[in-house]
Amino acid sequence: MKQSVAILGATGSIGQSTLKILADHPDKYHLYAISGFHRIAELVDICLQFQPEVVALPQSHVALFKDLATQKQLKQLPALLVDEAGLVAIASAPEVDVVMAAIVGAAGLSSTLAAVKAGKRVLLANKEALVMAGEIMLAEAKKSGALVLPVDSEHNAIFQCLPQQYFSHRQQNKQPQLGVSRLLLTASGGPFLNFSLEQMQQVTPAQACKHPNWSMGQKISVDSATLMNKGLELIEACHLFAISEHFVTVVIHPQSIIHSMVQYIDGSTLAQMGNPDMCTPIAHALAWPERISTQVKTLDLFEVQTLDFCPPDLDKFPALKLARQSMREGGTAPGILNAANEIAVAAFLQERIKFLDIANLVDAVLQQSQFESTDDDLNVVMAADQCARDKAAQWIRQYGVQ
Amino acid sequence: MKQSVAILGATGSIGQSTLKILADHPDKYHLYAISGFHRIAELVDICLQFQPEVVALPQSHVALFKDLATQKQLKQLPALLVDEAGLVAIASAPEVDVVMAAIVGAAGLSSTLAAVKAGKRVLLANKEALVMAGEIMLAEAKKSGALVLPVDSEHNAIFQCLPQQYFSHRQQNKQPQLGVSRLLLTASGGPFLNFSLEQMQQVTPAQACKHPNWSMGQKISVDSATLMNKGLELIEACHLFAISEHFVTVVIHPQSIIHSMVQYIDGSTLAQMGNPDMCTPIAHALAWPERISTQVKTLDLFEVQTLDFCPPDLDKFPALKLARQSMREGGTAPGILNAANEIAVAAFLQERIKFLDIANLVDAVLQQSQFESTDDDLNVVMAADQCARDKAAQWIRQYGVQ
Repeated sequence: MKQSVAILGATGSIGQSTLKILADHPDKYHLYAISGFHRIAELVDICLQFQPEVVALPQSHVALFKDLATQKQLKQLPALLVDEAGLVAIASAPEVDVVMAAIVGAAGLSSTLAAVKAGKRVLLANKEALVMAGEIMLAEAKKSGALVLPVDSEHNAIFQCLPQQYFSHRQQNKQPQLGVSRLLLTASGGPFLNFSLEQMQQVTPAQACKHPNWSMGQKISVDSATLMNKGLELIEACHLFAISEHFVTVVIHPQSIIHSMVQYIDGSTLAQMGNPDMCTPIAHALAWPERISTQVKTLDLFEVQTLDFCPPDLDKFPALKLARQSMREGGTAPGILNAANEIAVAAFLQERIKFLDIANLVDAVLQQSQFESTDDDLNVVMAADQCARDKAAQWIRQYGVQ
Repeated sequence: MKQSVAILGATGSIGQSTLKILADHPDKYHLYAISGFHRIAELVDICLQFQPEVVALPQSHVALFKDLATQKQLKQLPALLVDEAGLVAIASAPEVDVVMAAIVGAAGLSSTLAAVKAGKRVLLANKEALVMAGEIMLAEAKKSGALVLPVDSEHNAIFQCLPQQYFSHRQQNKQPQLGVSRLLLTASGGPFLNFSLEQMQQVTPAQACKHPNWSMGQKISVDSATLMNKGLELIEACHLFAISEHFVTVVIHPQSIIHSMVQYIDGSTLAQMGNPDMCTPIAHALAWPERISTQVKTLDLFEVQTLDFCPPDLDKFPALKLARQSMREGGTAPGILNAANEIAVAAFLQERIKFLDIANLVDAVLQQSQFESTDDDLNVVMAADQCARDKAAQWIRQYGVQ
């Protein structure tokens, strides 16, 4: 029986990797629906190759899509759904078994939640869903029976190292279950791992955007440089694996070959490794508990030769401390951290604040904020998000370069 | 419901580690029976602590055992069974759920086979069972439903990295199953990893017996120095995981922190790591698929700092090549390799042959031998073993120091 797949964010890099895997396994998966936001020509190309039944896109691009479809001689025009409602409709369509939630940012929040509520297998590539609304997502998954599986390389690695039945044993007490004692979240350490605190004061956006192991967008590159990215992943891990932050250790591992680890009460540590290619975690989450082949090059340890580990320097990377603190607070706190960080990173990229001010700003916003329980209400989350953004902008007006 | 455990070889190091775990979990395990060969005082001490119902020992030590039991005021004398028949009786006793097969060498063969035939959970620490009689063991396990679980740190690591249902899917075609593509067997490389071939020609028994990471007996220390130990483990892995030697790669990893790995068709590599303590694999095999706690210190990667990998040099370590070749031949060939190696190592320890002659002797004996199918007959195995020992002795008379 073929699984029917919807890809929310099909033209992005996660979407493209997912399509590669579907192309390799036409006997196992059928692409039922896709969504795209602005790369409309690529959306049409996907239709030419896969003939999905449904496409969701912004209303403003419908005419362009139809023109391009005619130009490129697409035989069968798919049903076109528009805007947010279109995304939600795809995510919850009864025809769909698996939803790849790969829309970046808050824009992907409501469609991801719709997929969770509809009880789908949800492959989660959208960070904000868990950082902003982790409690809501997981509570809804419990109700609907949705299987929320991580495709982030770190969380997928942890998932691979956990007992197979771990997810069905997620408890409310935030203690590790089934013999697990600790999660080890690996981090490359980013481009400034060996910088002094003095050197970090002078860091430019161009320097921050050069990541040693992965080529990524500007926002996530800066987050990797501050280690806020690892902080956000820590928050995600706590939600996903129903564990208190106290049981998650961040390990700096510059080669990024071990993608994360799980420790057990018998003295075992299990690690998942591989070459950095998102096709591996996507294929894993798609096929789990089975495995399907990918074209990812098998890890050659004779080529790798050496793996190094060290603890993070929290004085140089305070973002990690702030993220941990926000997770301890819970409720709206992680969302506030995330929103303040988004504004701070944008200001840094515009050279309105210094690199080390990113964490200073987030810290200030957290200190000014009151944290609320999210009460299973996305509106509470969104209000806290907006409020944090306002406070962040205020901070920049006060302390940033005019 | 408590599991009832029999430990064959209770006074050895694996036996002692097993007892430590049982002492930590009196709610889960009951020690029903033990065996010992010459450390009779220790056997009585175990009875004082655990009160097993049955003890197997050599007939020649029964009187000594009774004397010591009286001296040490053992309240309830256990039933005493003697010699090989006693071991077999314990291994197949209906009261027993789990058999720890930790008698070293060919002496453990028949009792291990008895446990397998009786359909027990067999924790396998006896190398010879699989090297000499792997085909017979696994065929009998299939018939009886015995669960043969490895407690060797490498094989247990592989077991931990395989899908939980792998063992019930073992196939006859020697292909990896369930998305597995390859097993990576790690090796410390032994004390001569960085020796030149010229230096290795001059190696003394004292040098060969100093292992960098583990303190072990002389025989296994020499096997670690020649990498024959890894060759024997390669053979065990092929039997245990029903896989052709072609799918097993040996990886030199001097720190011995990663105990072995499994690679998958999706690009994932799973590794099991830990501090070197046999309590971890024993506890894992005992509790699987659950986990129980041990007192083993959790791995601290910040302390470890670096893991290194390189391929083995087959010119310096031809034993590895010979083991692989014997596994390809199958039948009695691995047993012949093992027997010839035992004689060769003993001769090296007596300084009758040189270090590099160990592999030369094994090679010569393999070349002089005809390989037969074991035909599910332990007599065929034992005859081939004796014949190989004779040929090895002959080689030493001809080429060794007189």
